[in-house]
Amino acid sequence: MDISDWRDKIDGLDEQIVRLLSQRAAAAVEIGKLKAKINVPIYEPMREQTVFDHVRSVNPGPLTDAQVQDIYERVMDVMRALQRQQP
Amino acid sequence: MDISDWRDKIDGLDEQIVRLLSQRAAAAVEIGKLKAKINVPIYEPMREQTVFDHVRSVNPGPLTDAQVQDIYERVMDVMRALQRQQP
Repeated sequence: MDISDWRDKIDGLDEQIVRLLSQRAAAAVEIGKLKAKINVPIYEPMREQTVFDHVRSVNPGPLTDAQVQDIYERVMDVMRALQRQQP
Repeated sequence: MDISDWRDKIDGLDEQIVRLLSQRAAAAVEIGKLKAKINVPIYEPMREQTVFDHVRSVNPGPLTDAQVQDIYERVMDVMRALQRQQP
């Protein structure tokens, strides 16, 4: 496979990743609504730590666990911002 | 569905996301090896822009396009770091 074949493969993976991130975001919005109803804060550091531990634990490589967590720190920042944007 | 049901759903999505990110990382490693062979730099801003345009174009929401790009900026930083770590 040459560079352009690998890039085609990556483009296909990115479409799947964006689809799953969107489903994750939709679930986060639902959680945000439930939290608003029962007056629980959006930011729950214990839950975020559980998410980081979980994604590290299912990491098959070649990314290091720290790199997976790096990506997820951004994911969680964005999900929190999305929850706060809801009407 | 209550908060804990949504969190179970998110945990399942995260497992799929980490699997796909790992496949993406493995493909990036292969591209890094091919680039080293033909003496092309790891960082190619035009290709990164193409990736950002692509993920924005396939974004179904509820994340904004800017939020999808935010996540992907971190993804690309990590992928570049991984390519540079290779022996």
